[in-house]
Amino acid sequence: MIDWKLKEEGFDKEKISYLGNKFLTGNGYMGVRGTLAEYGKENLAAINLAGIYDKVGDGWREPLNAPNGFYTYLVVDGEVLKLPDVNPEVHYTELDYRNGIFTRHSEWDTARGKITFDSERFVSMSDVHLGGMKFKVTADFHADVEVVYGIDGDVWDINGPHYDKLEYIENDVIGIIGTTHEKGYKVAVCGGDKTSFPCEKKINVHDKKVLKSINFVTDINKEYVIERFFGVYTSKDCENCVEEASKEVTVALRNGYEDAIEKHKDKWNSLWENSQVIVEGDDKAMEALNYSLYHLHCIAPRHTDSLSIAARGLSGQTYKGAVFWDTEMFILDFFLMTEPKVAKSLMKYRIDSLSGAKEKAKSYGLDGAFYAWESQEGGFDACSDYNVVDVFTKRPMRTFFKDKQVHISSAVVYGIGKYLKTTGDTSILSEGGAHTIIECALFYYSLLLKRAVRDYYEIHDVIGPDEYHERVNNNGYTNRMAKYTFEEAVNVINLKDELSEEEQEILSQYDLDDLKNKFTDAAENLFIPQPNENGVIPQFDGYFDLEDASIDEVRSRLLDPKEYWGGAYGVASHTQVIKQADVVTWLNMFSKEFDLDTMLKNLEYYETRTEHGSSLSACMYALLACKCNRPDKAYDFFMKSASADIKQGGKEWAGLVYIGGTHPAAAGGAYMVALQGFGGLSFDGDEIIVKPNLPESWNRLCFRVNYNNRLYEIDINEAGVTKKELS
Amino acid sequence: MIDWKLKEEGFDKEKISYLGNKFLTGNGYMGVRGTLAEYGKENLAAINLAGIYDKVGDGWREPLNAPNGFYTYLVVDGEVLKLPDVNPEVHYTELDYRNGIFTRHSEWDTARGKITFDSERFVSMSDVHLGGMKFKVTADFHADVEVVYGIDGDVWDINGPHYDKLEYIENDVIGIIGTTHEKGYKVAVCGGDKTSFPCEKKINVHDKKVLKSINFVTDINKEYVIERFFGVYTSKDCENCVEEASKEVTVALRNGYEDAIEKHKDKWNSLWENSQVIVEGDDKAMEALNYSLYHLHCIAPRHTDSLSIAARGLSGQTYKGAVFWDTEMFILDFFLMTEPKVAKSLMKYRIDSLSGAKEKAKSYGLDGAFYAWESQEGGFDACSDYNVVDVFTKRPMRTFFKDKQVHISSAVVYGIGKYLKTTGDTSILSEGGAHTIIECALFYYSLLLKRAVRDYYEIHDVIGPDEYHERVNNNGYTNRMAKYTFEEAVNVINLKDELSEEEQEILSQYDLDDLKNKFTDAAENLFIPQPNENGVIPQFDGYFDLEDASIDEVRSRLLDPKEYWGGAYGVASHTQVIKQADVVTWLNMFSKEFDLDTMLKNLEYYETRTEHGSSLSACMYALLACKCNRPDKAYDFFMKSASADIKQGGKEWAGLVYIGGTHPAAAGGAYMVALQGFGGLSFDGDEIIVKPNLPESWNRLCFRVNYNNRLYEIDINEAGVTKKELS
Repeated sequence: MIDWKLKEEGFDKEKISYLGNKFLTGNGYMGVRGTLAEYGKENLAAINLAGIYDKVGDGWREPLNAPNGFYTYLVVDGEVLKLPDVNPEVHYTELDYRNGIFTRHSEWDTARGKITFDSERFVSMSDVHLGGMKFKVTADFHADVEVVYGIDGDVWDINGPHYDKLEYIENDVIGIIGTTHEKGYKVAVCGGDKTSFPCEKKINVHDKKVLKSINFVTDINKEYVIERFFGVYTSKDCENCVEEASKEVTVALRNGYEDAIEKHKDKWNSLWENSQVIVEGDDKAMEALNYSLYHLHCIAPRHTDSLSIAARGLSGQTYKGAVFWDTEMFILDFFLMTEPKVAKSLMKYRIDSLSGAKEKAKSYGLDGAFYAWESQEGGFDACSDYNVVDVFTKRPMRTFFKDKQVHISSAVVYGIGKYLKTTGDTSILSEGGAHTIIECALFYYSLLLKRAVRDYYEIHDVIGPDEYHERVNNNGYTNRMAKYTFEEAVNVINLKDELSEEEQEILSQYDLDDLKNKFTDAAENLFIPQPNENGVIPQFDGYFDLEDASIDEVRSRLLDPKEYWGGAYGVASHTQVIKQADVVTWLNMFSKEFDLDTMLKNLEYYETRTEHGSSLSACMYALLACKCNRPDKAYDFFMKSASADIKQGGKEWAGLVYIGGTHPAAAGGAYMVALQGFGGLSFDGDEIIVKPNLPESWNRLCFRVNYNNRLYEIDINEAGVTKKELS
Repeated sequence: MIDWKLKEEGFDKEKISYLGNKFLTGNGYMGVRGTLAEYGKENLAAINLAGIYDKVGDGWREPLNAPNGFYTYLVVDGEVLKLPDVNPEVHYTELDYRNGIFTRHSEWDTARGKITFDSERFVSMSDVHLGGMKFKVTADFHADVEVVYGIDGDVWDINGPHYDKLEYIENDVIGIIGTTHEKGYKVAVCGGDKTSFPCEKKINVHDKKVLKSINFVTDINKEYVIERFFGVYTSKDCENCVEEASKEVTVALRNGYEDAIEKHKDKWNSLWENSQVIVEGDDKAMEALNYSLYHLHCIAPRHTDSLSIAARGLSGQTYKGAVFWDTEMFILDFFLMTEPKVAKSLMKYRIDSLSGAKEKAKSYGLDGAFYAWESQEGGFDACSDYNVVDVFTKRPMRTFFKDKQVHISSAVVYGIGKYLKTTGDTSILSEGGAHTIIECALFYYSLLLKRAVRDYYEIHDVIGPDEYHERVNNNGYTNRMAKYTFEEAVNVINLKDELSEEEQEILSQYDLDDLKNKFTDAAENLFIPQPNENGVIPQFDGYFDLEDASIDEVRSRLLDPKEYWGGAYGVASHTQVIKQADVVTWLNMFSKEFDLDTMLKNLEYYETRTEHGSSLSACMYALLACKCNRPDKAYDFFMKSASADIKQGGKEWAGLVYIGGTHPAAAGGAYMVALQGFGGLSFDGDEIIVKPNLPESWNRLCFRVNYNNRLYEIDINEAGVTKKELS
C-alpha cells in the first residue's frame, strides 16, 4: 500500500517551479504553491484565488494572486537564513496528500551552532478562507532568534501589477488590503499569531509587506512553537471583506491550531472515503492516481454553486486562469462519481455564463451560444487572436483557437448531458440547462452549410481537438459533437413539460416545434466522416492526402526546438502528424457506434501519428486501448496521464512566460482510464456495467461511485467483480 | 510625333537583364532577348519558344529556350572582343520597335587601331521560324579579324538542363538538334551565312556550340558585311524538324537578306496600320503606349489557331512560361480590337485545354472545369502548392494560388464572352466554347454553399485578385464573376439550336433544362456584397473588421525587404492593405451596374489601401478613374502601366531566381486605358460609343478598332469625335 506522502530530500534551485506545482495545497477557493515560506515572487510563490480576475494595460486578463499570508523567514544572530540564498545542511519538504499538509524541515550550521526550523501548513478544506501554519525553532546553543513573518503584498504576476493600491493594518492582527486595477475589487488578507513563550514583537511595513518580527533568545535544544493563521476574503465574497478576514483570524486563534487542523483533516478524510481508488499490486499506479485526485480535490469549487476549474487549476496565473473544454471532457467525470454537487457547480458556471457565449456568437455573425475557448468571469473569452509568438520573427502569429474551435459549445452540452445521465438530477435543466442546450444547438445550426450539389450538411473552417491543423472542413469529432448537440436539444424540447415554470417561461420564447424539426433534420443530415477502405476515419476532409511523414521525420525538420508545430506553416501542418487525440476522442465518446475492429484500426493508425503535444491526449489513447481490450497498450498512456504533476519534465516556459502549473485534465483523464478503462465501468439505464480490463500487475481495483443519487462500491479482484450499494 | 526607336547609349553591366527585356524582338513563335550576340546563359541570353515545355527532376516545368542561332563574337589580332569583359570605347544599342529590328554598334581601340562592329537582327514576322542578322566589320588598320558565329546550345535554363542530348551538324549549313528530357521533343536550329569577300571558314564544335569562324585581314576602312540566317523548328511543329530548319536557312540564303527583312518590315507595317494609337500633345505617352503594343505584337500567336500568351510573354522562362488570367482580363482586348484572329487563338487555347481544367476540378472533388492558375500544354496547372519561400526559415510556404484562386475559370468565360460581343463571331461557341462555358458554370455550381439559416448562396474559402488575403469568404469579384458565368451559361443554353451539329451533339450529353434552372437559380441567389453605409463595398466578408493601417505603416513592419506581404502571417494579411485592384476590377467590368458615386467612393477608398504589388493593378485604377471622369487621377496609373517595360525598376529577382521579364498584361492594360478609359470607347449592340475623357495635355487620340467584323477609325480631337468605317 501507499503512505500518501511525497518527500523531496535536499535542495535544488532548478526544482523551485516544479515543486511549486507538485507540493501545491488548496481548497478550491485558493491554491498555495508548494514554495518555501521565505520565497517571494522571484521564486514563483503564490496564493492563487479562484474566479476573480484583473487586467492591466494590454496584458491578458488573469486571476488574482492574494498577498501571501504564509510569508516567513528566520534571522539568527543577525544573519538572514533564506533559501535559495543560504543553503541549509539538512533540508527536506513533504506533502501529505491524504490530508493536504505541507511540511518543511531545515537545519543550518551557524557560526555558533545548529538551528533547526520545522513548519507545517495547510489551507483549510473545512473553512476555505483560512490558512494555518505552525512552526518550530530549535537551536543547540543560545541563539539570538528573530522570526519574521507576515503578509507579502509584492505578489507574483504575469501581467501585473494588479493592485493599484495596498493598505496595511498594523494592529495585533495585521493585514493587507489590495485594490485591483480594473474593477476595483478588494482583496483582504489578515494574519495573527500565537506564541506561548516570552518574546518581543514588532510590526513594520516595507516593500509591500506587513511584517511582524518575534525576537527571543533560545534555551539549548528547547522547541519554540509559533502558531499562526491568515484569513482571505475578497469584495466578491462579501460586503466587508476586511472585517471578515480579520474575524477569520480572531476566531481561529481563539479555537486554536489543533482545532483548525483537525477539522481540515476530517474534511479531507470524508472526501477520500468516497473518492480514493485502491489499486493492489501496483503501488506506483495507486500513488500517481490518488495524488492526481488530490489535485482535483484541491481545486474543486465547493464554496459556491456556480464556478468552474481553470486549466492549470489554482497553481498560478498560467493560461489566464481560464476554463477550457478540459473541465467538461476530462475533469467532470471525477466529480460526477465522487461529488455530484461539485459537478453541478461546474456546469452551473457554464449555464450562468451563457450571455457571454451568446455575445461571442453574435460577434461572429452567428446565432446561439458560442462558448469561450478560454472562459473567465461571465463567460468572457480571454483567448487572443494571437496566441503564439513566431520564434523566427518574434511577431505574434494569428491563431484560430478562439474563432474556429467551435467544438467548445458541444463540450458544454456534453457536460450537462453527462450530469443528467449520471445523477438523474434534471434540476440542472430547470435551472437554465434546457435553454443553454438549445442555444448551443442554434449555434451549430447557424454553422451548417449545404453545397448546392449535395444533400447533406457540412461544417467548414474549424479546428478540431488537434490544434496543429487549422481551418479544416468536416472535422469528424466536431461534426459528431454538433450532431450530439442537436440530438440533446431535441431531447430537451421533448422534456419541456417536466421543467420548472421559470424555465418553461424562457423556452416559450422559442418556436420549439420549428426548432425540433430543424434540429432533427440537422442531426439526421449532418455529414459524419466514414472509415476508408482500411477502416480508418479521416480526421477531416483531405486528411489522408497530407504527407504521411513520421513524427521523428517531422521533428527533424524543426529549425528551432521552440517553434510552433502548427499554424499555417508549422512542421506538422501539412503532414498527418497531429497534436493530440482527435478521432480517438470521438471514438471514446461514442464507442457504442463503432465495432471493435474499427476502434482498433483507428487507435493504431492515429497512435503512430500523434505527437501528444497536449496533456489531454494520453488518457484518450489509454481509454480507447482499454475498449479495444488492450490494457497493456493503455498502461503507459495511463501512467503518463497520472504522472503529469508528480514527475518533473512538463513544459514550464514559453520564452520568458511561465506556462507551467498543474494538469487537472490529465488527472481527471487518469481517473477516467482507471474506472472506465481498466475498470470497464459504464452505465446503461439503471444498470452499472463493469467489464474489467486490468493491467497484468493489478490484483485489485476498488472504488466508489455515485450513480443516480446512490453510492456504490465496486471491487474488482481475482475473485471477480463485486458491486455493493452503500446508500 | 515619335521616332519609334529606343536607344541605349554606352554600356552598363547592371542593365544587362533589364535591356534583355526592353530590347526584346519576337514574332509569337519565338522571343529573342535583347542581349548582345556574344552573350551566353550567364548574361541571360535566350531564344524563348512559345508553347513547348519540359520538366527536369523536381524543378518546375518551364518553356524551352532554343539553341541561340544569333551567337556571334569578334576576335581581332588574337584578342577576343566580348562584352561585358572587354569594354568598347563607343557602344550603343537600339530597338526600332516599328519594325522589330535590333541594332548594335561597338568601337574598340585595339593596340593597332580602331575596329568597329555593327549589327542588325530580327526574327521574321512574316516567317516565324526565321531569324536574320547582318553584321559589318570595319577597321582603320589591317586587322587580322576572326568572326566567330554559330549556334550556342549551352542555353540559359532556370530549371534545366532540358536537352539530354545535343547533336551537331557541321556542314556548310550548321546546326544543333536538342532532345528534351521529359517528352523527347526535338528542337532543331540550323544556321547559314553569306559572305562576299575572300575569307577562310572553319567549323568546330565545343562547349555545346557549333561555331563557324571566318578569318580575313581588313583593308583600311573597308566594310566587311556578313549576312546570316537561322531557322528553328521543333518536333511539335512538323514531322522532320531538322530538314525544315535546314531548308528554312537554304531558302533564306537563296532569296537574300534584303528580301527577308523587307517582308518582315512589310508585315510589321501592316500590323501597325490598324493597331497604332496616335496621341498628340504627349509624345512620352504615345511612345510608351505604342512600345507596349510592340511587345504584344511580338508575342501574338499568329502561326497557330490555338495558343495563348505567357505572363512574361516570350522574354524567358519566368513564371514557367505559363498562361494566367492576364490573357483574358488584360491582353485579350488589344487583339479583339486589332487582330480578332489572334484573339480567337487565345480563346481556342482555353477551349482546347478544357480536359486539363476538368481534371483539376475533379482532383479537388469539384465538378466542371477549374482552369489552371498557371496553364501550360493541355491545361496542365504548373502552379505549385508552395510558391513562396519564407525569407526567415528558407522553407517553402504553402500558398493557395492554385487551389483557391477560383476566379480563373470565370476569366475564361469572360474572354469568350468578350470575343462574342466584340466580333459577333459565334463560331467559337460551335468549336467548343459552348460546352466550355457550361463546364465552368458547373464548376461554380459545385462551389455554391447555402447556410441552413440563409436563403442565398455563398462561395467560401477563396483568394480574389488581391492575393495578400488568402482563404476569404464571399470575395465580391469572385462572386460576381461566378454569377456572370451562370448568366453566360444560360445564354449559351438558350442559343443551342444555332450551334454546329458537333457542338449540339456534345451538349446533348447534358440535361440542359435542368442546368438552365440550376444556373438561373444560382445567378439570382448568389450573394453579392453590397456597399456599406459609406458606399464602400467590402472586398470579402469581414474585410472592414481588419486593421485599417496605412501602406507606409504596414511597410514599416517588414523585418526583411524581401519578405512576403501575404500568406498567413504577412504584414498585409491582417490589415486592409491589398496587393492589387480587386473590388476596383469588379467595378470596371460591371460598371453599368454601379452609379458614379459608388464607383468614386470605392476608387478612393481602395486606392489608398492598394500596394500595387502586381503590374496588373495600375491599369484597373486608371480605367475606373476615367469612368469617374477623373482622367487626371488616371494618368499616372496609365503611365505606370504603359511604362512597365520601357522603364527600369521592376522586380527582377526573388532571391536567386530570376523573375523579371516583360509585362504583357500591363501593356494590354495600358491599351485598355487609352481606348476605353481616355477614349471612353464602349459598345452597345450595333453602336460604338465614344465618350472621351482625355488627359489635359492630349490634343488628339486616334485609333482603329475592329467591331462586329468591321474596321473603324476613331479620331478624337479638339473638333470632336469622328467615327469612320474603313471596311
